[in-house]
Amino acid sequence: MHYQHEHPENADEYKGLSVSKGISNAPIINPYLKKMRKKPLLSVNDYVSGIVRGDISVLGQAVTLIESSLPAHQAVAQRVIEKCLPLTGRSVRLGITGVPGAGKSTFIEALGMYLVRAGRKLAVLAVDPSSERTKGSILGDKTRMEELSAAANAFIRPSPAAGSLGGVARKTRETIALCEAAGFDTVFVETVGVGQSETAVHSMVDFFLLIQLAGTGDELQGIKRGIMEMADGIVINKADGANLQKSKVAQSLFKNALHLFPEAESHWTTEVLMCSSTEKTGIVEVWNMVERYVDFVGKNRYFDYKRNTQSKYWMYETVNEQLQNSFYNNPKIKELLNKTESEVLSHKISSFAGAQKLLDKYFRSKTL
Amino acid sequence: MHYQHEHPENADEYKGLSVSKGISNAPIINPYLKKMRKKPLLSVNDYVSGIVRGDISVLGQAVTLIESSLPAHQAVAQRVIEKCLPLTGRSVRLGITGVPGAGKSTFIEALGMYLVRAGRKLAVLAVDPSSERTKGSILGDKTRMEELSAAANAFIRPSPAAGSLGGVARKTRETIALCEAAGFDTVFVETVGVGQSETAVHSMVDFFLLIQLAGTGDELQGIKRGIMEMADGIVINKADGANLQKSKVAQSLFKNALHLFPEAESHWTTEVLMCSSTEKTGIVEVWNMVERYVDFVGKNRYFDYKRNTQSKYWMYETVNEQLQNSFYNNPKIKELLNKTESEVLSHKISSFAGAQKLLDKYFRSKTL
Repeated sequence: MHYQHEHPENADEYKGLSVSKGISNAPIINPYLKKMRKKPLLSVNDYVSGIVRGDISVLGQAVTLIESSLPAHQAVAQRVIEKCLPLTGRSVRLGITGVPGAGKSTFIEALGMYLVRAGRKLAVLAVDPSSERTKGSILGDKTRMEELSAAANAFIRPSPAAGSLGGVARKTRETIALCEAAGFDTVFVETVGVGQSETAVHSMVDFFLLIQLAGTGDELQGIKRGIMEMADGIVINKADGANLQKSKVAQSLFKNALHLFPEAESHWTTEVLMCSSTEKTGIVEVWNMVERYVDFVGKNRYFDYKRNTQSKYWMYETVNEQLQNSFYNNPKIKELLNKTESEVLSHKISSFAGAQKLLDKYFRSKTL
Repeated sequence: MHYQHEHPENADEYKGLSVSKGISNAPIINPYLKKMRKKPLLSVNDYVSGIVRGDISVLGQAVTLIESSLPAHQAVAQRVIEKCLPLTGRSVRLGITGVPGAGKSTFIEALGMYLVRAGRKLAVLAVDPSSERTKGSILGDKTRMEELSAAANAFIRPSPAAGSLGGVARKTRETIALCEAAGFDTVFVETVGVGQSETAVHSMVDFFLLIQLAGTGDELQGIKRGIMEMADGIVINKADGANLQKSKVAQSLFKNALHLFPEAESHWTTEVLMCSSTEKTGIVEVWNMVERYVDFVGKNRYFDYKRNTQSKYWMYETVNEQLQNSFYNNPKIKELLNKTESEVLSHKISSFAGAQKLLDKYFRSKTL
């Protein structure tokens, strides 16, 4: 079920690329941005050359521009992205989801440290539209990623500040592009199991990993319906000590359940593994699974198909979101919307007649 | 995954309520409509009074108007619907899905005959956007519903002729309204497991029933991902003779799998039953389950909540679909779309820059 427009007021927040907010009324809650306003902007070419030579400081500044709502920043950011685009696409993109408490941070620390020690360059991003930096978003608590934060070949960036899912997703996808241009060959995108954020992350990664805990038999009670069917892999975390036996039971439950699911479009069979992020067991196996997947979908050509589908998806999704913003932010629609909804709910007019009434008003106001 | 705009060209077909096709270029593939053009239209009041007194012939003619793309027909249809709306809402709406071969038609015949014999008035509709009457849609083959077709208290109507899902869904939802105004207290909406049609049907019924067959352990291979999580009930059909033992195994597999799913918003626990439509066993039990559900969600007030959510959903969904039609049918967008998509796929511009380029063109052409 995708009742994406049950709360059209959320659409207000996303202005897409054509942001029109001035400095005075732009809500600055981004500490990176705050710091940045003291620094002069680099030229587009300086950003690009810095990124291409793998300068993490320049990369970070460019990401801050992406996150900024100032038109001047956005203009530069878009030109930087465009120049970096030919260098993008050459990383493995791993989406990671799981309920709070599943141990995502310690898992990312463990898998991430394994990868950077093996010589990979790792960017860790997040999509969390509900986050506010001041309240501590996911990835905000770097104490659980102490080693990785300090590692030379790792770039960790929390979710862009609170905003609509569309806005946050756009910024994250653009950040992936810059990271790839900067030579990062591995990108993690973490998300919490809230709203539509998993769908967004699923639509920007190659492999979608669900982190689970062994529990009471109600293993999936905490997460949203449909997530299990999105997963390319499931890993049962904290499979150690007294938890090991329960984890084995959970593993076999998940395997049986997955057996009942229809085959994925990729023809890949979702695997269920166990690991312990604290004891560092099963971590290598998770990465081996990801590599097996990349190899498998490389051979059957699903990898490129999915990447292309995702690029198209985001183009059409952005168009749709902006069409809706234009509609729902229209003063005449704002005035009429609640009244029309009430008429529909009280059976005075049908849903379709209500929609038509609004559409007529909107298109007339646009002097078609 | 909802890549609803991967095929924006499909949007062409749906013009919503403001159909502008003249008689000459309207593709008439609806046999009901063909028959109708020979008859004069009734007045709005005559349609309404005919429907309200339960005249199935008048009901059928009014449904034909709903299905017609002629502006004159649509104008009358909308006024009839509006007048009937205060009388709607008082039926139990049951969605029925399952792969071809699961025995949907014989199941509907068996359950339907049980219900009309018990004194209920039953309307059987279908949503099948791919159907063309000439090719025989679902419900088209009435030989499998011989008794029900002849029953006095049953109204069977195949899917509206081929068209976009949005158009077909709208017509079906409007038909439900007229049937309810005509005193039908039970409405079945059948669908095949294709594309987004289950989501559409799920969004217009109270109870969503998945018909399954006992198989080889790959029970769900034939149906789309996510369907099982939409189901309020699963019934394993053809549970008879040599199939009975296999059906019991399938029943317990499904029960175990469902146990792993997160709780539904309704707090209802999906039940798994067995039946034989040919031997007429287990049929009463299916209806008892539906009644248990209606009672359960009546008490916890989910029933009304869901109905209201659905009404809002269709209003917003119609708005979105028409906004997209206006965009994708715009001549300038049609001209630019393929080129922009190619630029995105060849990494010349980002998905977001591509979207922005199209949006700028569209909104400029509308002289905002």
